Amino acid sequence: MSRFLIDRLQSLEPYVPGEQPQDMRYVKLNTNESPFPPSPRVVDALTRQIISRLNLYPDPLAQTLRETIAAEYGLAPQNVFTGNGSDEVLAFAFMAYGSERGFAFPEIGYGFYPVYARLYGLKPAAVPLNKDFSIPAEKFCNLGKPIAIANPNAPTSLAMKRNDIERILRTNAGSVVLIDEAYIDYGGESCLPLLSRYPNLLIVRTYSKSRSLAGGRLGYALASAEIIDDLNRVKNSFNPYSINSLTMLAGIEAMRDRAYFTECVNSTIVQREKTKADLRGLGFSVLDSASNFLFAAPPYMSGEAYYKGLKQKGVLVRWFGDPKLKDYVRITVGNETQMRVLLDKTKELLEEVTA
Amino acid sequence: MSRFLIDRLQSLEPYVPGEQPQDMRYVKLNTNESPFPPSPRVVDALTRQIISRLNLYPDPLAQTLRETIAAEYGLAPQNVFTGNGSDEVLAFAFMAYGSERGFAFPEIGYGFYPVYARLYGLKPAAVPLNKDFSIPAEKFCNLGKPIAIANPNAPTSLAMKRNDIERILRTNAGSVVLIDEAYIDYGGESCLPLLSRYPNLLIVRTYSKSRSLAGGRLGYALASAEIIDDLNRVKNSFNPYSINSLTMLAGIEAMRDRAYFTECVNSTIVQREKTKADLRGLGFSVLDSASNFLFAAPPYMSGEAYYKGLKQKGVLVRWFGDPKLKDYVRITVGNETQMRVLLDKTKELLEEVTA
Repeated sequence: MSRFLIDRLQSLEPYVPGEQPQDMRYVKLNTNESPFPPSPRVVDALTRQIISRLNLYPDPLAQTLRETIAAEYGLAPQNVFTGNGSDEVLAFAFMAYGSERGFAFPEIGYGFYPVYARLYGLKPAAVPLNKDFSIPAEKFCNLGKPIAIANPNAPTSLAMKRNDIERILRTNAGSVVLIDEAYIDYGGESCLPLLSRYPNLLIVRTYSKSRSLAGGRLGYALASAEIIDDLNRVKNSFNPYSINSLTMLAGIEAMRDRAYFTECVNSTIVQREKTKADLRGLGFSVLDSASNFLFAAPPYMSGEAYYKGLKQKGVLVRWFGDPKLKDYVRITVGNETQMRVLLDKTKELLEEVTA
Repeated sequence: MSRFLIDRLQSLEPYVPGEQPQDMRYVKLNTNESPFPPSPRVVDALTRQIISRLNLYPDPLAQTLRETIAAEYGLAPQNVFTGNGSDEVLAFAFMAYGSERGFAFPEIGYGFYPVYARLYGLKPAAVPLNKDFSIPAEKFCNLGKPIAIANPNAPTSLAMKRNDIERILRTNAGSVVLIDEAYIDYGGESCLPLLSRYPNLLIVRTYSKSRSLAGGRLGYALASAEIIDDLNRVKNSFNPYSINSLTMLAGIEAMRDRAYFTECVNSTIVQREKTKADLRGLGFSVLDSASNFLFAAPPYMSGEAYYKGLKQKGVLVRWFGDPKLKDYVRITVGNETQMRVLLDKTKELLEEVTA
């Protein structure tokens, strides 16, 4: 840290992303990436000719990309905002709506929400979860401040009912309610059908999971034209060309390839349900997941010991030091081979511990 | 704008980028892009195999990219920060260093500085230029607040002497002095040799011009390890994976291809000097450019009429409505063919006006 950094930022505790070992030796189940490559249409679209045009700026309006996303969800392009990963979209939203009243979110959720709050000097209002890790909808009603909720939630993998979210929207009509649907394609009820009725609803989504484009960095928001306009005002005061040309094209093609998308999502759901049953069979406590990961507590050993044991055996999962989460690990649902390795290594560990 | 947007942002006047017509019909000399494609090494590096791995997150530390840039400039990787275009780097710097004392910059310069100031609610301190459009170094001495100066400056194309910048650095030891070297490869004296002596120096650069990668979105900062640490703290509280995998690889290869880089820059300088002489021969007032663009005022007609006349004839240049700049247009230096078209269309316009 330099002596020039402004006071407010000196106490920042940045978000810590999951380990990204660059040597690729691990079976990597720690950052909820898709185990499948992007759509073949993406690979075909990024030709040498397209790459040769990188000397020109991308379209700052991302017109075709926004039209493509809008068409997929039955919306108009003015209801779509695109950003450099959903993290950037979230960062803009916290900047646009974080007032002196602060920003509310579940105490256990995407770890970035409190980071954004601190970055902008907002009062974070962390609402505790129920004992079973579900989100207490009633505690978010009539809050009178902006709200961010991941649905399905991370790292718990649990989905909220749309009816419950609708109550939150209705009772906070004066504030933006951001629903982070990063994992919605894997389960749960999307808030899309509520968009036309709730001008305070802001849905944020990502290409990093179900669209197999984590490396491309692309996220988007779906909301009223007025909210999208807010996000554009912030973007155009921050980084007008925030999406590069190749990612823009990749995003168009990935969205258009509905068959491939469905195939990947279905395969992940099959593996998720199988792995959940297998782990439960081994004595794990596993929450019912509506996402592409499992939140699981091992028997006979701590969450930390399980995480470290797996890492030693070449399998990376994510363990959170937080006392409320420490019995659990978050396991990304990979492909069949990866899940078999996970199961094999898990059995080895259990045998070692109980021997 | 929605009714939820916080007060401070309601009066934002976002930066207006140059027109980006997507139909490619124009000879496009309005956004200072390189007329040359990226290095062949970039095109070769982005293989189908690489694109197929986009399901995985990029390295959030951009380790290899930072090492490559550091090696090129004789620095250590901890002196290098990389961002999603230099606009993002600038946005982070204004966030990190903009205090209640505000942020100072030349009244005429990169149009984004006052936008950042407004975005963060900082008091902008715009220092007027000299009559000849040069930057009055003495007016930036002993300011006691952070400073941002583009060198060479845009849209004037003029470079400041390194000695003058050093005076500013020395007399503002308590504040960060950001030197935006977006165009430095085309002329002027870089502040690189001052880095080791001035811990308050922050150099920002871009791949969008001399590296032919505007479409890839890649910028970087060179500074003391402490300043780089500040920028990382902000980035990791905002968007840890801000650079996508393909751009990261492109940035590595473009930086390594020194021969191609030198060839492109030299060709641009040759065209710049020739076009400057040609325009002066036609009666234009043209400033001495240290960049990849010319700041030129036409004879017999207003800057606006020249801009509009050229546009009608299929040539896009940039005209700024600002009263202090209104006699001039900013013309990107393109390749030989583009410059010939510019000259031809300019002659036609002059003939039409003086007929």
